[in-house]
Amino acid sequence: MSGYDVIQVGAPSSWTDPGGAPTAKRFVDKEIPTQFIGTSVNAAEPGAQSAFWHAHERLEELYVFLAGRGQMALDEDVIDVQAGTVVRVGQGVMRAWHALPDSPEPLRWLCVRSGGDTLADIGRDSRFDKERPRPW
Amino acid sequence: MSGYDVIQVGAPSSWTDPGGAPTAKRFVDKEIPTQFIGTSVNAAEPGAQSAFWHAHERLEELYVFLAGRGQMALDEDVIDVQAGTVVRVGQGVMRAWHALPDSPEPLRWLCVRSGGDTLADIGRDSRFDKERPRPW
Repeated sequence: MSGYDVIQVGAPSSWTDPGGAPTAKRFVDKEIPTQFIGTSVNAAEPGAQSAFWHAHERLEELYVFLAGRGQMALDEDVIDVQAGTVVRVGQGVMRAWHALPDSPEPLRWLCVRSGGDTLADIGRDSRFDKERPRPW
Repeated sequence: MSGYDVIQVGAPSSWTDPGGAPTAKRFVDKEIPTQFIGTSVNAAEPGAQSAFWHAHERLEELYVFLAGRGQMALDEDVIDVQAGTVVRVGQGVMRAWHALPDSPEPLRWLCVRSGGDTLADIGRDSRFDKERPRPW
């Protein structure tokens, strides 16, 4: 799959849910075909949080925070994140996130994922915990 | 390689070469260990360009532009890029970039790379053309 593809996702300051939800997620790799690199652009209004925890069996994820202030939960740990924080998350680590209620702007980030094979061959490798409360 | 790692690279508006060069590149994956995802944070002052063209044999690259205005050359094509432009580049495609001389701010972007194996096993897979003039 040589060649190249281009998509416009808008400046980070424009990332928002088209339906007005407090969190927004747009998968670049659902709109242009990629082999190995999965990427989503994400935003969360102050006070908003991930709907659930999740972990990946095979995929490594890299969160690149670009604006706002928030926290990530990583198994038993909670870390502060802001513009410029990059978090690599290995296999099996449960993760969740929220934007601080007093964040001066929405928390905005890229989430990159890849797993040593084509995304098509890896398929769905995530597990969820929709019951576990988040720690903030 | 489970667990997680955190690094602070600063907000995109702060990305600059510590030595004052017109272009800046910082490899996240040289500072924290990653398995599959290579990422660099990049900036180019208005008018600055890549030092050379390059292509990858195995790696797919994804350029996520975050600020400024510029162009990418992709083999024989030249495309405009700005905040929100995402470009996937497949294997073998020669690429170069520049920030427009009248860009209102430095061109800033993330470059993500991955290749269906660990980065360590892929090793150096790039070729360069340091003689080919860029098309702007």
